[in-house]
Amino acid sequence: MIPFNKPYLTSKELIYIKQAVEEHGHISGNGVFTKKCQSFFEQSWGFKKCLLTTSCTDALEMCALLLNIEPGDEVIMPSFTFVSTAIAFIRQGAVVRFVDSRTDHPGMNEHMIEELITPKTKAIVVVHYAGVACDMDTIMDIAVRYNVKVVEDAAQAIDSYYINSKGKKQALGSIGHLGCFSFHETKNIQCGEGGMLCINDEQYIQRSEVLWEKGTNRAEFFRGEIHKYGWVDIGSSFLPSEINAAFLWAQLENLEAIQSKRKLIWEHYSEALSQTFSLPFIPQYATNNAHMYYVLCSTLEERTDFIAKMKKQGVHPVFHYQSLHVSEFYKHKHDGRLLPHADRYTDCLVRLPLFYEIDENKVIEAVLNCY
Amino acid sequence: MIPFNKPYLTSKELIYIKQAVEEHGHISGNGVFTKKCQSFFEQSWGFKKCLLTTSCTDALEMCALLLNIEPGDEVIMPSFTFVSTAIAFIRQGAVVRFVDSRTDHPGMNEHMIEELITPKTKAIVVVHYAGVACDMDTIMDIAVRYNVKVVEDAAQAIDSYYINSKGKKQALGSIGHLGCFSFHETKNIQCGEGGMLCINDEQYIQRSEVLWEKGTNRAEFFRGEIHKYGWVDIGSSFLPSEINAAFLWAQLENLEAIQSKRKLIWEHYSEALSQTFSLPFIPQYATNNAHMYYVLCSTLEERTDFIAKMKKQGVHPVFHYQSLHVSEFYKHKHDGRLLPHADRYTDCLVRLPLFYEIDENKVIEAVLNCY
Repeated sequence: MIPFNKPYLTSKELIYIKQAVEEHGHISGNGVFTKKCQSFFEQSWGFKKCLLTTSCTDALEMCALLLNIEPGDEVIMPSFTFVSTAIAFIRQGAVVRFVDSRTDHPGMNEHMIEELITPKTKAIVVVHYAGVACDMDTIMDIAVRYNVKVVEDAAQAIDSYYINSKGKKQALGSIGHLGCFSFHETKNIQCGEGGMLCINDEQYIQRSEVLWEKGTNRAEFFRGEIHKYGWVDIGSSFLPSEINAAFLWAQLENLEAIQSKRKLIWEHYSEALSQTFSLPFIPQYATNNAHMYYVLCSTLEERTDFIAKMKKQGVHPVFHYQSLHVSEFYKHKHDGRLLPHADRYTDCLVRLPLFYEIDENKVIEAVLNCY
Repeated sequence: MIPFNKPYLTSKELIYIKQAVEEHGHISGNGVFTKKCQSFFEQSWGFKKCLLTTSCTDALEMCALLLNIEPGDEVIMPSFTFVSTAIAFIRQGAVVRFVDSRTDHPGMNEHMIEELITPKTKAIVVVHYAGVACDMDTIMDIAVRYNVKVVEDAAQAIDSYYINSKGKKQALGSIGHLGCFSFHETKNIQCGEGGMLCINDEQYIQRSEVLWEKGTNRAEFFRGEIHKYGWVDIGSSFLPSEINAAFLWAQLENLEAIQSKRKLIWEHYSEALSQTFSLPFIPQYATNNAHMYYVLCSTLEERTDFIAKMKKQGVHPVFHYQSLHVSEFYKHKHDGRLLPHADRYTDCLVRLPLFYEIDENKVIEAVLNCY
């Protein structure tokens, strides 16, 4: 049987957890391994300030708090995304304006954003679906012109880039005012449940540390900048345990090996299935971090049939994302616009298993048996 | 050197984490170890439904969401508590009415609650300081008479009980409508950062599962009660990784040994220091779970001097909780009442190191050298 996903130990995860307990004597948040991970991210991809979180959802919630989202504020985001993109902002009272997907890609249609901007718009949340960049120059230009903030939901986009028309290459998550990553077990780099907030606009750095540590100025205290710490703001316990950070650090040490292997698997899928399905589209301005290999069926019926046939062969592909604008929770709050491409990807997209230790030959064989 | 706290491995933490990865193939939330822990808590202490969370703060936030706390709603809680007790409710817009501590104990004065109740009061949040029960009969009686809900912040109160006037013994966290625990590294049972929500009032069970899983009805789906899951409510990613649950499960398997040892250390402190300090007060209706050993100095100056002298001897006691009503964040929002006992504990309380592998003789020796 080939499951959809399988977590793995690169080598040192358990050693580092033991070290956190026995050598550092510290397994709550913000210890040695948290700092190692955060520095690594800052140095490798140019994020101004990184804070690990317990999930990408929590990182998105920090964005909603940092941007002072209040009841009635509007936030623009794709409909074809994980529910966390929306709930983080809705928890603060935001009204979400959903954007359709592109024709050629499940990511949001950048050219449908501007028409949704109103005086109440506070933020655009872009989602780099499958780790494939949105057209960030187009989006940042809109943001500048209308003075709204941009949050990159880069949950799937670690080690992926946007290359603008002048050839400048920027890591996803480093372009918007704020960026969010996930280290959920299905991600390239993982620690079970986990996430990270990247603060690229320096005005948010100081407050982000306060929100992270339950509304206290503990971070400043530990840096010796103040002589006593206390309660100064709202916040939550956004920081993860050192147990998770230690696990993540072991994965990061193996980043190159993980990424090389995933890219090989992705290329193998791409070559073997090019006669059966059209290849996942990657725009010129985007790179491929091999987070996901998806195929598109023509109809919901075909997809249902395909998944069933795959399962019969012991292979477990999955579909995902139900357009949020037609969900039970939001359908009566949505403004009524049709978002046909989001609905099409909802019905037709299938993700093939893709994990570090996979034997993708068996998946390919199973797919070819179906067609 | 004896630190204030030191986490420890009981024996199987790393084995269970390995098992989660390699045997279960599942390190995101709500896997085998999460269910094991939750069932153990439900069966051992009579909580109706348990959900592990990433922190006690998050469990408290779930309470605020379940109770539909809205801007302007009032919540009553002690001032002498951790900031999380307050921020979880304030994040939803609550106005907090702070209660003073008791004369004989840092816990809230149960007899000062009723006068704070107004038509806007939605909840009373009790904090079982040091794992020592508040007088729950008194509090539940007020709650019934005024139709407000009771949340037990039992962060420190695992394996501790309230015994009412009729001799009925009830686990802390199982008496209020909702209860919250912490598994932070300083707690008796730990997983770095972690918590748990206990739902004792059945009306909240179904929605708690939805909030826990990002506003989706995924739990019902996996139980086969519905055939498709989707977005139905607000929520967050409150559930912890199986990595943390596996760690916690190893600790729970050693609960008896941990509790016996902590109680011995506590008794040892109590005997050895009874001539120097008055003993921590434990009311007749409360049990002692040996979470904390604290002593009370007479003044802030004495405490500062005492802590300095202890540190010179290589022992690290800590003071804690700054009265929340005088904090930078809340002092202008507080209603102006003086809370002198909360302020006294803020100035005078010192926690001695207390952890599984401690050599408490050295701490006792250091204390006696100071007096």
